[in-house]
Amino acid sequence: MNTFGRYFRITTFGESHGSVIGGVIDGCPSGVRLDMAFITSVLQRRRSAGGVSTGRVEDDQPVFLSGLFDGVTTGTPIAFTIANKERKSSDYDHLSEVYRPSHADFTYQAKYGIRDYRGGGRASARETVVRVVAGAIAMQILGEQGVKITAYTSQLGHIRLPEGYLLEIAQGGSKVGCPIPEVDEQMYQSLLQAREAGDTLGGVVSVVVHGVPPGWGSPLYSKLDARLAEAMLGINACKGFEIGDGFALASMLGSAANDPFTSIDGVPVTETNHSGGVLGGISSGAPLLFRAAFKPIASIALPQKTVNTAGTVQSLTIEGRHDGSVFPRVLPIVESMTALVLVDEMLAQRLVR
Amino acid sequence: MNTFGRYFRITTFGESHGSVIGGVIDGCPSGVRLDMAFITSVLQRRRSAGGVSTGRVEDDQPVFLSGLFDGVTTGTPIAFTIANKERKSSDYDHLSEVYRPSHADFTYQAKYGIRDYRGGGRASARETVVRVVAGAIAMQILGEQGVKITAYTSQLGHIRLPEGYLLEIAQGGSKVGCPIPEVDEQMYQSLLQAREAGDTLGGVVSVVVHGVPPGWGSPLYSKLDARLAEAMLGINACKGFEIGDGFALASMLGSAANDPFTSIDGVPVTETNHSGGVLGGISSGAPLLFRAAFKPIASIALPQKTVNTAGTVQSLTIEGRHDGSVFPRVLPIVESMTALVLVDEMLAQRLVR
Amino acid sequence: MNTFGRYFRITTFGESHGSVIGGVIDGCPSGVRLDMAFITSVLQRRRSAGGVSTGRVEDDQPVFLSGLFDGVTTGTPIAFTIANKERKSSDYDHLSEVYRPSHADFTYQAKYGIRDYRGGGRASARETVVRVVAGAIAMQILGEQGVKITAYTSQLGHIRLPEGYLLEIAQGGSKVGCPIPEVDEQMYQSLLQAREAGDTLGGVVSVVVHGVPPGWGSPLYSKLDARLAEAMLGINACKGFEIGDGFALASMLGSAANDPFTSIDGVPVTETNHSGGVLGGISSGAPLLFRAAFKPIASIALPQKTVNTAGTVQSLTIEGRHDGSVFPRVLPIVESMTALVLVDEMLAQRLVR
Amino acid sequence: MNTFGRYFRITTFGESHGSVIGGVIDGCPSGVRLDMAFITSVLQRRRSAGGVSTGRVEDDQPVFLSGLFDGVTTGTPIAFTIANKERKSSDYDHLSEVYRPSHADFTYQAKYGIRDYRGGGRASARETVVRVVAGAIAMQILGEQGVKITAYTSQLGHIRLPEGYLLEIAQGGSKVGCPIPEVDEQMYQSLLQAREAGDTLGGVVSVVVHGVPPGWGSPLYSKLDARLAEAMLGINACKGFEIGDGFALASMLGSAANDPFTSIDGVPVTETNHSGGVLGGISSGAPLLFRAAFKPIASIALPQKTVNTAGTVQSLTIEGRHDGSVFPRVLPIVESMTALVLVDEMLAQRLVR
Repeated sequence: MNTFGRYFRITTFGESHGSVIGGVIDGCPSGVRLDMAFITSVLQRRRSAGGVSTGRVEDDQPVFLSGLFDGVTTGTPIAFTIANKERKSSDYDHLSEVYRPSHADFTYQAKYGIRDYRGGGRASARETVVRVVAGAIAMQILGEQGVKITAYTSQLGHIRLPEGYLLEIAQGGSKVGCPIPEVDEQMYQSLLQAREAGDTLGGVVSVVVHGVPPGWGSPLYSKLDARLAEAMLGINACKGFEIGDGFALASMLGSAANDPFTSIDGVPVTETNHSGGVLGGISSGAPLLFRAAFKPIASIALPQKTVNTAGTVQSLTIEGRHDGSVFPRVLPIVESMTALVLVDEMLAQRLVR
Repeated sequence: MNTFGRYFRITTFGESHGSVIGGVIDGCPSGVRLDMAFITSVLQRRRSAGGVSTGRVEDDQPVFLSGLFDGVTTGTPIAFTIANKERKSSDYDHLSEVYRPSHADFTYQAKYGIRDYRGGGRASARETVVRVVAGAIAMQILGEQGVKITAYTSQLGHIRLPEGYLLEIAQGGSKVGCPIPEVDEQMYQSLLQAREAGDTLGGVVSVVVHGVPPGWGSPLYSKLDARLAEAMLGINACKGFEIGDGFALASMLGSAANDPFTSIDGVPVTETNHSGGVLGGISSGAPLLFRAAFKPIASIALPQKTVNTAGTVQSLTIEGRHDGSVFPRVLPIVESMTALVLVDEMLAQRLVR
Repeated sequence: MNTFGRYFRITTFGESHGSVIGGVIDGCPSGVRLDMAFITSVLQRRRSAGGVSTGRVEDDQPVFLSGLFDGVTTGTPIAFTIANKERKSSDYDHLSEVYRPSHADFTYQAKYGIRDYRGGGRASARETVVRVVAGAIAMQILGEQGVKITAYTSQLGHIRLPEGYLLEIAQGGSKVGCPIPEVDEQMYQSLLQAREAGDTLGGVVSVVVHGVPPGWGSPLYSKLDARLAEAMLGINACKGFEIGDGFALASMLGSAANDPFTSIDGVPVTETNHSGGVLGGISSGAPLLFRAAFKPIASIALPQKTVNTAGTVQSLTIEGRHDGSVFPRVLPIVESMTALVLVDEMLAQRLVR
Repeated sequence: MNTFGRYFRITTFGESHGSVIGGVIDGCPSGVRLDMAFITSVLQRRRSAGGVSTGRVEDDQPVFLSGLFDGVTTGTPIAFTIANKERKSSDYDHLSEVYRPSHADFTYQAKYGIRDYRGGGRASARETVVRVVAGAIAMQILGEQGVKITAYTSQLGHIRLPEGYLLEIAQGGSKVGCPIPEVDEQMYQSLLQAREAGDTLGGVVSVVVHGVPPGWGSPLYSKLDARLAEAMLGINACKGFEIGDGFALASMLGSAANDPFTSIDGVPVTETNHSGGVLGGISSGAPLLFRAAFKPIASIALPQKTVNTAGTVQSLTIEGRHDGSVFPRVLPIVESMTALVLVDEMLAQRLVR
């Protein structure tokens, strides 16, 4: 399944070293004038690796192939492609017969009996550019409803922000996506250090969503937080998700974990937000608060023990262009996946009442 | 959406205080002789609350309505119901016009404009009995393929097992589901203490799955771990998920987090399992390892501040029958949801090659 | 797949000779007060075989298990069962090892490797009672939007109404569902004659739907008429479908087949309706007009040549209770399936603009 | 929904006058070496209008963007585009503010509130080129299983072949797709005559499928014939479908309509095939036989009465390039849609046993 979403559905295609990568959005409401400058700005955030990345740089201009008439959505499928210009497939020749540790090389081979090894093929993080185009469109639609999604770096390696979520964030200027400049700088130094040692860092993204009205989500199975969890774990390198106080709730008493209601103009509002804005799988009107944990990028520059396709153990040193961590580039991807879930639930609610 | 699964699909129905609760399994392969004793045994584990629960006790005998011929699946839908015998709806009359904190009362009302307040209606944990029937059938089918799922309590309140997963577990005899007897007893005492204080505890479930072959799962969006995350967060009170080393990976170096491959009889096998058995969304052949965090049960016996349906702030003391934590009853539910994901991916793989 | 519909989804279960047969409706909007008398009246039309049937008679009272609170839909799944009281399974013992001609016996066996031969199992027309319950609910919801569906018998055996659709029909009193009394009587006599000879008749249902606004349906693949075709062919014994002038359009000139537009109060309206109310897969606002052809019931009383499960050719004379044709009982089934398609498209349109 | 299929899913996009039109196939098994020459040959049949068409001619070379590695499917999505080279959008300027009779202009506007009027936008028959690419791939996969699909013209205007299906067909050389040369020539003359008069013709396609094993399809709702009906009615201008003897069955007696079984090497085989190869929604092993009726092309050269977007009645004479009927170009489209249904059911059967 290469489709995400039930109502606002994005189907994607493309490999790292194909001529293009792209997607088809089916179910976008008609009559939306796409804000191309906004889409470009979110793509730009995904491209930019602060001062950190030495990797591949693409210009990432989406070409829209269908579904628009004079820049306005017509209700028919919106297809788009983004060119893969910087393809140096020969960089990957040495990987055609070896399985990189903690990459998808072996598991793709096991699943399909064949794989496109060039640049990681379909498993490449290159694929996320497609999610960002669709996510930016979703963000625009949500924005018109007053929904605002913000992701930020709350941990990089051993450097982390204090517990809790930052409810108001002034974005911009940061190197690795942490909104507190001195911590951002610390994280950055830590990342430089790791890279120098041929190594990589993991981290944690925190997300705050304002403006979701009460009533979005589903009571069972596809609870709003379950869908967000699926969306986050669906991003490369994501290995954990928690909503509200998450794992910390496991050691809290019920009397401390519950969120008392109070009333503002007769509307029930929670006084605290340990639940992260979701009760019983449905939004409560409080801000959505959640975190996603990312492992270090698997492509390190150090030699590693591995196995080749003949089943022989060997040492491998990965060449080619790689980032030192997914930060800060993962932030707009996280926001995009969040937006895709939320726009879907916004539409779903139209079916209920 | 009250359906879980794409190929092995379970659609469920029923409220806590309806006459029955039940489900329909569509997509179960034909020719499977259902092991009713096994189904009953898993249901029995869900019913039993060790020495802890003083709550509602049902006999939970599923009645199969269709899809079987002489006890063997025919490929047509398998419907079943379980009676709700212990319904004391009058216990809930005082809740008809008030929103319990950290329950789904308010959010259901916001979503649907109407709610069945008796026993929590559809949001009641009573619903999980249906998942367990379907999950037990999935476990049986997986078991015939050599797949074995085990969930255990690794944290209850402040008491927790040391880091890491227990790869071999001798089940049975425990009070709250922790396989190390002395820790189980400590957890139990801690739970009794909380209950005495009118309070409740949260905790963490760890899951180990042996026998999944390489190749199950999907590369993007619906990665195997993403689906497991969705399944776990789809359980009432679950607020966090991590696979392998999960959140701990955020502070590890790539060189420490990667799992080197070695070869056993020419087959690639990872020497470590920080990734928890999933690489690029697809199973690697290593055991699946993941954890789910559960908040304390929201129904505490202490007075709480809340709002009623008229929008007025009031104090509320919840009456009725409630457990002190979701442990150990949540364990077979976790195993069931895991089985439903895995049986779906087992079938999905038949479509690929 | 035992689910019909994308937004208003009905999942059904049950065999002819199980204790019950039933369904689960997921996606019904909340806040609808179900009109039980109306549901019963549609079920009554399905039960009644005019003066013709000597077959099984059930009382067909649906029992609602979930999804209602004080008779109003809550947005959660609406499950219901209908008891199978008149089960004489021994009637079918002689069919356990033989394949009835033009029945699904052999094909079920080929597909599943096992079958419930009693009363046709899942393939029995008994199953349609479930569709009618769901269909009646859909009709009620559509009725509140001004949509009115009417099916009538336009052909039975060799007796047929003149070409064209009857746009206004005064229902009631008919024996086989033809709204012109003298033709209905002719059809009835023809049916009696066939039955006396141990034989059965086929026929054609015509359907007229008033009140569908312009804009329901989909442009491609799942065009409104394509979905109606699928719904009709999804009814047992249906072998043909045409919309508007259908097969007759094949021999018409474009200049005669096209429907000119005129304007009523500035709204485009077609002057003729050769297209049957659908243009490009989307409703035009004109009445929907379509027909479905039904083959004679396969269970005839005459001896037939067939093969048994051992592969030996033999003669078979079918015993048991059977109708002489699907008329008039198929009419409310046709209306129900039509309603299920239309209510789905009504909801789908909420997602578009 | 612009996706067709459940397991072998084709999602399409594009308008008549966009730069390209295309699709994404998700769920194609891995390891299939695509036969590009075959794909081209099917596309060529769709392009060629015998001696009849004076319309737009594209070279229709698909460009594959993903999902292949050295020409072999990898199990990842197969995206492709086909250029729209012959776009003369100015031809359509006079249609921007008028609704063509029996076209989708008005209904698109009613559904979406906006439409791309150039060349019919998404509603153009240009879209079918995408179905043919996907269909050709499906045909190749089916062909490797021994399934062979053949569509032919059995009626054009008033000229028709005698009743019944032609089980063996030597294709090629025909002008309008009728395999009997003298009838084909008659049809051709009839078409020339209609065109000279500024008019258009409808007709009927007959389809014969050899090699489908017993057991493909579903018992209810999505019966094999129901899915074929949906697929046919999903083609532009299709207004009717019948399987086997179809509408003729309505006037047959059961004793004549039933297909007796005999036994060949112990396998049940029907002696006749009034049912068209489907019993109870599942294939019987007999050839699939069905017909689809097509209305005359709505774009006639004669003046017509219609309404403009301001609601004013006016006369309209359509300019631009148009065929005189959908024959013979519709034949590979019909075969393609048939193949897409069958490959889906081939895969579905893998899930059952």
